[in-house]
This record gives sequence, structure tokens and C-alpha cells, in this order.
Amino acid sequence: METNSRIETALGRVVEKTTAAPCPSHLAEAIRYAVFPGGGRVRPGLCLAVAQACGDSEPRLADAAAAAVELLHCASLVQDDLPCFDDASVRRGRPSLHERFGEAVAVLVGDALIVRSFAEVAEYVAAQPAACAQILQALADAAGAPSGIAAGQAWESEAAVDVNAYHHAKTAALFEAAAVSGAICAGGDVEKWRRTGALLGSAYQVADDIADALGESGRLGKPIHQDGSHARPSAVASLGATGAVRLLDQRLRETMHSIPACGHRESVEHFIEMAAQRLCPPELRSQLRHTA
Amino acid sequence: METNSRIETALGRVVEKTTAAPCPSHLAEAIRYAVFPGGGRVRPGLCLAVAQACGDSEPRLADAAAAAVELLHCASLVQDDLPCFDDASVRRGRPSLHERFGEAVAVLVGDALIVRSFAEVAEYVAAQPAACAQILQALADAAGAPSGIAAGQAWESEAAVDVNAYHHAKTAALFEAAAVSGAICAGGDVEKWRRTGALLGSAYQVADDIADALGESGRLGKPIHQDGSHARPSAVASLGATGAVRLLDQRLRETMHSIPACGHRESVEHFIEMAAQRLCPPELRSQLRHTA
Repeated sequence: METNSRIETALGRVVEKTTAAPCPSHLAEAIRYAVFPGGGRVRPGLCLAVAQACGDSEPRLADAAAAAVELLHCASLVQDDLPCFDDASVRRGRPSLHERFGEAVAVLVGDALIVRSFAEVAEYVAAQPAACAQILQALADAAGAPSGIAAGQAWESEAAVDVNAYHHAKTAALFEAAAVSGAICAGGDVEKWRRTGALLGSAYQVADDIADALGESGRLGKPIHQDGSHARPSAVASLGATGAVRLLDQRLRETMHSIPACGHRESVEHFIEMAAQRLCPPELRSQLRHTA
Repeated sequence: METNSRIETALGRVVEKTTAAPCPSHLAEAIRYAVFPGGGRVRPGLCLAVAQACGDSEPRLADAAAAAVELLHCASLVQDDLPCFDDASVRRGRPSLHERFGEAVAVLVGDALIVRSFAEVAEYVAAQPAACAQILQALADAAGAPSGIAAGQAWESEAAVDVNAYHHAKTAALFEAAAVSGAICAGGDVEKWRRTGALLGSAYQVADDIADALGESGRLGKPIHQDGSHARPSAVASLGATGAVRLLDQRLRETMHSIPACGHRESVEHFIEMAAQRLCPPELRSQLRHTA
């Protein structure tokens, strides 16, 4: 099955479990709203690209891990938009989840997605304990505290910010978990793939800063200028637009060079090329050339 | 080690992992605030009482499961108090967590505790896969959707409420998970213990309704009359105070009778007697006799 279909099929399966009877109907609808239609599905895409690069010997477990990673991402977006965080009323071009379903349901959707993320992988524990132990650990490291998404968001409530810890926790940690999980499912070198995942995550963080500073809200489907208005550290603020794009390109090159030796390297190379296109589209590059 | 010390030691260990460097200091302080000092520690107490009744053959895993259950409970209390839920400014006699640390940090504490709950049990997966697979499943069933705490809270946002599903999800599910986890750790009969857990949980739900309707805010350390003001289903509203106390006593008797055959039945009997005392203290009973 083609990668995108694998991801959507796996997500459909986990969302169905999460919204089955006797799930309250409003919550069920909100859970589907949080997961479908998706954005770029970049994190599960990375997970499966790495699994395929390493031989994809346990595709069902890889699908479960990919879905788990994406659920954590979806939960983080729902929370990010809440009034007590970014207070964003639009996401992916439609009302943000709390705008549509209320804050209480939004908080509960976050919980339900996080719980399902672990439950989905836990289903494979009895059959593949060693791999699942590592994947569950990677998911927890990426999602919680002291250094996952929860910690990353919490840095925004601190008086003094450790910028490296902030960026790693907020963005790179889940990319790491995606790459690591894909490698675990197919016997790849976990620590080497962790580095590739972290580098791509760090490229994403830079690209996100660029999009926030220079992108158009309509094309991104979400509010822009959040970093400035919340006084957050940003690559554009510290390096300027051209410097930030240069840093992005450097991170993408480093990511490409970091790909470990593996049987099907081209699956990850192709994935990173596609991600790079998406991260800094040609029209943004040309806009930058004209303003530079 | 005495049961209470086991629980506090296990919780101390998991909180330390969750707040280790590089955890943002504000978040770390809030996580400790959410877990210490505790309330009755009833759910982890049930988990360990059941494990002891069944022989306590894997005490470290039982401690991990007990801590995991309590973290889920602490997370649910933090969320319950949020402005978009009960909007409670007091909990356990001090400012509720969001009152003290802000809403954003409160939401993140919930995430971090839920994630740690799964991570804690996941540490034992490689050594005890079969038991951990079942415990992780029980935790997920109790915490998420379609029928755990997230679903239970979400029933409060529905126009039409399935009262049985609501009460089971909101309260009984985590008691079930506590009893089931204790049984799994010591080779007990999981389904029989599930019933005992569910019955005790249902007694707790009735007791909670009574305390909310008749208790004193100062003694409870939290706001009262929440059910009435949020128009929630309540045993007191449907049966009157005396009827509700009669129902509570009946549920406690059923719980006691449901205890499965096991080596050390007295550990659970004693636990349930203590819980009953706590659930409906003598002064409340005498107050009810005078008003009846």
C-alpha cells in the first residue's frame, strides 16, 4: 500500500476505536475533527519512510507507531490553539477545535488522543515486547515532561527560556520519536536515526519561524505573527529572513547527510526532498530574493 | 513497607523523573503541586490492597501500576478545576492548580501526568510483557475515550446524557483499572476483581454526590453544590439524601460480597472498611439522621 494510504488507514482505525460506543457523540465528532482531514502527515510519513529504508519488516507495528506519533501531533495542535495558549480561532483553514466544540471538549480531545497514542502501541506489547518497550519510551519522551511537547509548551510560561531545550522539546522531540520508532520497527540503528529525526525537526522549527514571520495566513490556514506577538525566540528575529532561510537550507543538508547506511536510503531521501519543498515553497524563496 | 509509604515512595520516584532537568521550573513545581500532598490515595490503595490479597508476587510492578493510576486521578482533578469545567478556585484546601500556576501550565500538567502514567508501566514491558500489555490496556480504558475519564467528562457537554455510561466513565472506570492492575500484578482473577473495583467506584460516585450536596466546603477542601449548579445527574437529586446514603451502604455491601476468593482477603476487606468510613463519615450520617 502506498505510504499516504497506510497512514490514513491506520489513523482511521485508531480513531474508530477511540470514538466507538459509548463515546459521547460530541466528543467523537471532535476527535474526528482533530485528526481529519490532516495536514502534511509529516511525522508519520517520516516514521514509515525510515521503516521502509530499513526493510519494513514489521509493517503493522510501523503503522501503529506512525499513527501514534500523528495523534500526539494532533493533540498538540488542538492545545496550541486554546485561548490560554495561542488563542487561535483558525486552523487548517477552518475554525479551530475549541472554537467549534468548546474549550472543555478541546481539552478532552487532547487527553483522548494522547491516551490512544499509547494504547495503540500497547496492543503489540505481548507479541513484540522489546520493540514496543522502546517505542512507548520514545513516545513518552516526545510528548511529556521533562523534555517532550508538554515541556516545550511550558517553556513559553517561563521568565527565562532555555532556547535549545525549548525548540528541541516543542518540535524536534516528536520528529526524533517518529524516526526512532520507524527504525525500531525494522531493526535500524536507533541512535543514528534519532539524529536524522532531530535534524529534520530542527529544520521544521526554522521553517515554522519563517512561515510565521513571512507567510500568508490564508495559505497556511492558521494565524501568523504569533512568535512576535508572544515575544517568542525565533530564527527570523535573531538571523533576519535571509539568514533564517540559509539556516533552513543548512539544516536540510545536514539532515540529508545524516541518513545512516541502510538498504533503501532513497525512500528517506525522497521524503526529505518533498518535506523541503513543503517547508520553503518556491514562491516564498522568490519573495525573499526580491526583499533581500 | 507499609502501603501508604509504598504509594508515596512510588509517586516520589515518578514525579522526580517527570520534573528532572531540563524540565522548565514552573512546570516542575506545578507537577509536584498536583501530586503532593495527596488526598486519600484511594485508587493506588485499592491497587496495592488487591495485589496484596493475591499474594503481591510482583511488588515493583504493582507500585508502578498504583502510581500510574494515581497520576491519572491527579490529572483529572487538575482538569476538573479548570475554568472551562468546574471553574473551581480551591482544591484540597489550597488554590487550585490553574489558580496558582495559570491555565496553560495546568493543561500541560495534565498532559505530563497522563504521559508519565503510561511511561511508568512501559518501563516494565521488556521484563513482564504479558502483565504490562494488560495494565496499559486497563489504564487506557480508564483514562481515554470511548469510556474512560475523558469520555466521562465529555458527557457533561452533551445535550442528552447516558447516566450509566457517564458515571462509569467518570468514576468507576479508574477504580476498575486500579483493581484490575493489582490483580494482574499478582496473578489474580482479573474479571472478578474488575467487578469489585467497579462496585467500589460506583459507591464513590454516590458518596461524591452526597458530599457535594450536603458536605461543608471547608472540610472537603473544595467547592460544593457543583452538581446542582451544573445540572448534573446526582444520586441525591434522584433519591433524596437518605435514599442516597442507603444506596451508598448497599454499594459498599455489594463491594464487600464481590471480593473474589484469594489468599489474603482481609487486606481488601480492611481497605474497603476504611474507605467506607472516609466516604460517609459519622458526623454526616448523624446530620442525615437529624434531618430525615
